Amino acid sequence: MSVQLQSKATQAASQADLANAIRFLAIDAVEKAASGHPGMPMGMADVAAVLFSRFLKFDASDPNWPDRDRFILSAGHGSMLLYAILHLTGYADVTLDEIKAFRQWGSKTPGHPEYGHTSGVEMTTGPLGQGLATAVGFSLAERLANARHGDALVDHYTYVIAGDGCLMEGISQEAISLAGHLKLSKLIVLFDDNQISIDGATSLSTSDDQLARFRASGWSVRRIDGHNPDEIATAIEEERQTGRPSLIACRTIIGYGAPERQGTEKAHGAPLGAAQIAAAREVLKWPHAPFEIPNAVLSAWRAIGARGHAERMAWADRCRQQGANVPKALEGETEIPATYRKAVDALRSRFAAERPNIASRQASQQVLDAIAPALPALIGGSADLTHSNLTHAKSQKSVAAGAFDGSYIHYGIREHGMAAAMNGIALHGGFIPYGGTFLSFADYSRPAIRLAALMGIRVIHVMTHDSIGLGEDGPTHQPVEHFAALRAIPNLLVFRPADAIETLESWQCAVDAQTRPSVLCLSRQALPAFRDDADGQNKVALGAYVVTEPQGGRDVTLIATGSEVTIALEASRLLAAENIRAAVVSAPCFELFLEQPEKYRASVLGTAPRIGIEAAIQGDWSRWVGDTGEFIGMTGFGASAPASVLYREFNITPSAVADAARRAIAGKGRGH
Amino acid sequence: MSVQLQSKATQAASQADLANAIRFLAIDAVEKAASGHPGMPMGMADVAAVLFSRFLKFDASDPNWPDRDRFILSAGHGSMLLYAILHLTGYADVTLDEIKAFRQWGSKTPGHPEYGHTSGVEMTTGPLGQGLATAVGFSLAERLANARHGDALVDHYTYVIAGDGCLMEGISQEAISLAGHLKLSKLIVLFDDNQISIDGATSLSTSDDQLARFRASGWSVRRIDGHNPDEIATAIEEERQTGRPSLIACRTIIGYGAPERQGTEKAHGAPLGAAQIAAAREVLKWPHAPFEIPNAVLSAWRAIGARGHAERMAWADRCRQQGANVPKALEGETEIPATYRKAVDALRSRFAAERPNIASRQASQQVLDAIAPALPALIGGSADLTHSNLTHAKSQKSVAAGAFDGSYIHYGIREHGMAAAMNGIALHGGFIPYGGTFLSFADYSRPAIRLAALMGIRVIHVMTHDSIGLGEDGPTHQPVEHFAALRAIPNLLVFRPADAIETLESWQCAVDAQTRPSVLCLSRQALPAFRDDADGQNKVALGAYVVTEPQGGRDVTLIATGSEVTIALEASRLLAAENIRAAVVSAPCFELFLEQPEKYRASVLGTAPRIGIEAAIQGDWSRWVGDTGEFIGMTGFGASAPASVLYREFNITPSAVADAARRAIAGKGRGH
Repeated sequence: MSVQLQSKATQAASQADLANAIRFLAIDAVEKAASGHPGMPMGMADVAAVLFSRFLKFDASDPNWPDRDRFILSAGHGSMLLYAILHLTGYADVTLDEIKAFRQWGSKTPGHPEYGHTSGVEMTTGPLGQGLATAVGFSLAERLANARHGDALVDHYTYVIAGDGCLMEGISQEAISLAGHLKLSKLIVLFDDNQISIDGATSLSTSDDQLARFRASGWSVRRIDGHNPDEIATAIEEERQTGRPSLIACRTIIGYGAPERQGTEKAHGAPLGAAQIAAAREVLKWPHAPFEIPNAVLSAWRAIGARGHAERMAWADRCRQQGANVPKALEGETEIPATYRKAVDALRSRFAAERPNIASRQASQQVLDAIAPALPALIGGSADLTHSNLTHAKSQKSVAAGAFDGSYIHYGIREHGMAAAMNGIALHGGFIPYGGTFLSFADYSRPAIRLAALMGIRVIHVMTHDSIGLGEDGPTHQPVEHFAALRAIPNLLVFRPADAIETLESWQCAVDAQTRPSVLCLSRQALPAFRDDADGQNKVALGAYVVTEPQGGRDVTLIATGSEVTIALEASRLLAAENIRAAVVSAPCFELFLEQPEKYRASVLGTAPRIGIEAAIQGDWSRWVGDTGEFIGMTGFGASAPASVLYREFNITPSAVADAARRAIAGKGRGH
Repeated sequence: MSVQLQSKATQAASQADLANAIRFLAIDAVEKAASGHPGMPMGMADVAAVLFSRFLKFDASDPNWPDRDRFILSAGHGSMLLYAILHLTGYADVTLDEIKAFRQWGSKTPGHPEYGHTSGVEMTTGPLGQGLATAVGFSLAERLANARHGDALVDHYTYVIAGDGCLMEGISQEAISLAGHLKLSKLIVLFDDNQISIDGATSLSTSDDQLARFRASGWSVRRIDGHNPDEIATAIEEERQTGRPSLIACRTIIGYGAPERQGTEKAHGAPLGAAQIAAAREVLKWPHAPFEIPNAVLSAWRAIGARGHAERMAWADRCRQQGANVPKALEGETEIPATYRKAVDALRSRFAAERPNIASRQASQQVLDAIAPALPALIGGSADLTHSNLTHAKSQKSVAAGAFDGSYIHYGIREHGMAAAMNGIALHGGFIPYGGTFLSFADYSRPAIRLAALMGIRVIHVMTHDSIGLGEDGPTHQPVEHFAALRAIPNLLVFRPADAIETLESWQCAVDAQTRPSVLCLSRQALPAFRDDADGQNKVALGAYVVTEPQGGRDVTLIATGSEVTIALEASRLLAAENIRAAVVSAPCFELFLEQPEKYRASVLGTAPRIGIEAAIQGDWSRWVGDTGEFIGMTGFGASAPASVLYREFNITPSAVADAARRAIAGKGRGH
């Protein structure tokens, strides 16, 4: 279909013109910025020009058209390739002035493409491998949406440009393995196979047969000349029909056209300089001044940018025929259904009545069982720890190749690939992804979690076995630094609920957080319920709140999270026996607490000395306990033993907390 | 050679007996602990029995014999397989009582094998994929040592048992790609190809052809019946001779012998229970009581454990012939040569005299140029950022397949694989590995960095471009949370030097730190020298120290790290103009500062209000600035623009610091 879409306007400019327009905008912008990466846009311009001019389904006037093809620049350092195309095809955000302001403060053209910052940028890329792995999520979301809404409304491809760096990163294996397993037939990876990386020839560090590798994961593969438009077009056309994800290795020359730089690592990451630019203008027969695009070429590109308009209109008609809410659902802007709210309220009432003594991972299982049927946008999964993370809701059917009506994904032992795929599912729109692993393995997914935070997208990580409380598996599996490490990531919500109701409230916050990812840190071990308020005020949303306030003012405030709230409560009872008045504060989410009004925060923290309790390293607890307080937690790695033994041996106990409280009070004086 | 090593004692017990001894120790220990993973030891017992009885070169009486074969249990949850073998072969650490104390506090048999805790455990495993990737480092170190000391002294294999989890983790791809490229012919991976993972059949989440995948990276591959001792032996024997790394996919049955658990995920991670254990005793014809090993079987195993003794003695003889220091060098206990100290002193004098205004990554380059020739144990490398990290010393030749006399490794775009390989090189002994990437990509290598810290080994990470000071590449490449996240890892030294001399001193600390890994966080941008003391006292080793102390007492103390020390110094001059007396403290290493005596710390921190300055999120800075201080840094992600613009826009400037100082003084009162 799309080959025929090639318009008359396109034909007025040659394919070489289209590509050279990309090349020289990249060359000129990098030169003006005195910074950037010309090599990749110059090398992949021919491939990109064929893809956009002849295949990509898009409409530059509506960057968010839900049924557009997605284009992911996994090799994000080649950002000028994308910006050049966005400008040429007429995306409103990317004017010529923005191109000239490449890599400058406040421009729409930052060094690497940034999602949410520039229309037409599907995701933030730069950290290598992320684009490819996220594209698997995009492509999977397309199939999930297709299974729900049908071919007439959901039928688009995901195209990726990836370089050697993307393919050498380990995450790429998790991604291609998952994509091959699920037979994501509408995923096409264009590999910039230029045989050069930053250190020099790729032969310095790799001897992989990439085609054989992808084939081993069930992909359709081929190698082409990346400077031959016909070969490129034939490859894309044919690979769209294989029923499998496709790798097209495009043999290209990095820095194509700059005679003394091309084919070497020198073309990668530095401006070409005046002499090489002049030479490239000669070689490529592009006599135009910097940033100047001849009218015929610009018109041709603009026609490409408008080409999808009619198709988009036809799609909108089909949508309207199927119901008013469909387009919104496809965009992922579905309002949370009323049934969800009802399910939450019912579960809350039950938790309040039953006060269950269960692990927060078990409470989370009950939350999922309750909300999954009411929230069809929810797509669950686990990195092969389903029975431990308790992430599989009763109502969920597994997703498999050819069974995309399911809503639970067996991600395999691929934490990083899972996190990236979840990013893609969220970015695609229409779904709320969540996925489980052990909290200790947050380290494996960290680059993708960071990217979700940077992009500001709703992705929910369910991370169980959140402390030494996991017991016998020992220090490799016991997170001690992970709260601090995750809290350090800006724009990420880290929840550590302390009982069943807090777990439910944390889930509510995570579902409500439309512009940031969340991590739910859940216990392996049982946590006694202390909340029984059925009124429905979400206290976790306050970040921290007073659980018990002593009569007659505070002598000390005990602040704890998760499983340690119970310890704080027990300590307060020990202290009460000595007439020491201890308030207990639960602090399930530091980030949300920091966003509360100063007055509320002061009322929670109080003026008495403060003791912090968390079975983890101190991290930023000084912020809460202050100069006169103390922190009770871990000072190093954990150990292998039953959980109760570990708490005792590491001295995270009610009596240790009470001792610390007495010390703090002695130092500061009671009542202060 | 080693097939002939099969002793008479071995033959008195059948191969099945040897394997069943492993199986039942694992079954009984897990049952007693009421926790653990019987499935893998039961499935791989036949393979392990053949490997240890007929091939592995080791001597249980000397677990640290440098020329021993290394055995890496990458599937670390199967720890009882290893503990059973260590006990059976007579390693002193693992008595029957320790087996009975499996997973208990203080035992030698924790849930996952822990390096440094139990003799015979070559590395800590549990986080999947790490063992396989670290084994690449072991195997590479063997080749490096071989190139330096010859076949007579260095000639050993690295064997790995890896499961589906290890092979699904992305790090495995980085590892196998690097191993294949370097043709690490003495690396043999025994894949526990049991087609089961925790969620169920591996077909739930993967369709990879693992043999084809490894073949694509240049490995020799084959599939065998993992319960057929002859097939196992033939495979190992033949694969030792291929000149390439080898994958032997051992088709096994998880939980082999437990009739109602075997071949299912139920066998993986829970005790079998009395009924299944009784049934397994019947099926496997092992009528012995729990923990009871018949004498003939134990003798056979003990003979296997002693088999390598003569070979070790002969090796020691050959060592002595080559020089007294050789064994020590092979063990990695080389004393730091005097020439190293001289090189350091000379460079220090030059830095003190020249006061260079250079980036700390450039200073680091000069350090490497100076020390690499004097410290032959140093093995450098970079994850394809050599020209940016400046990690290649002039004297270093690249390592390549067949050129193992080199000392610089082009790790490729494989940060995680690099970090794990460095762990393996350090663990093998004889070398001090360092490797470079951008600090932002510490996230990619984090699981391996954590493992190095947990194991307590000397690995040096050179992480450049350590802040928004990297400029135009933007927020994907700008670390803001990475100091906090790395400082959160116990037993890891995080250095952020502020000028050339501090960079040199940081390198010295990292080289001296024999029992912990280091991260050197280095700037892209130039940092003016402020240190010119040539006396050689290593002030970085103090963690933090006073750079300038005002006359007449302090009104405020400005504490900064790295590139922000310059800002603090400028702020102190602004304040001095108003007669505000500001001390400036450089704090290049929080961890070392925390280890200083209380009195020293108090003298550095002072009693005046404190302002912390670091171009990063606040993290644990509250600890240093206290209730009356203030932190000047980042509150979110960075942006793409020239570095100077970013510092201005994010308000990390001398005047912002001076403002904060004035505020703090106003709140606290001058002179307090």
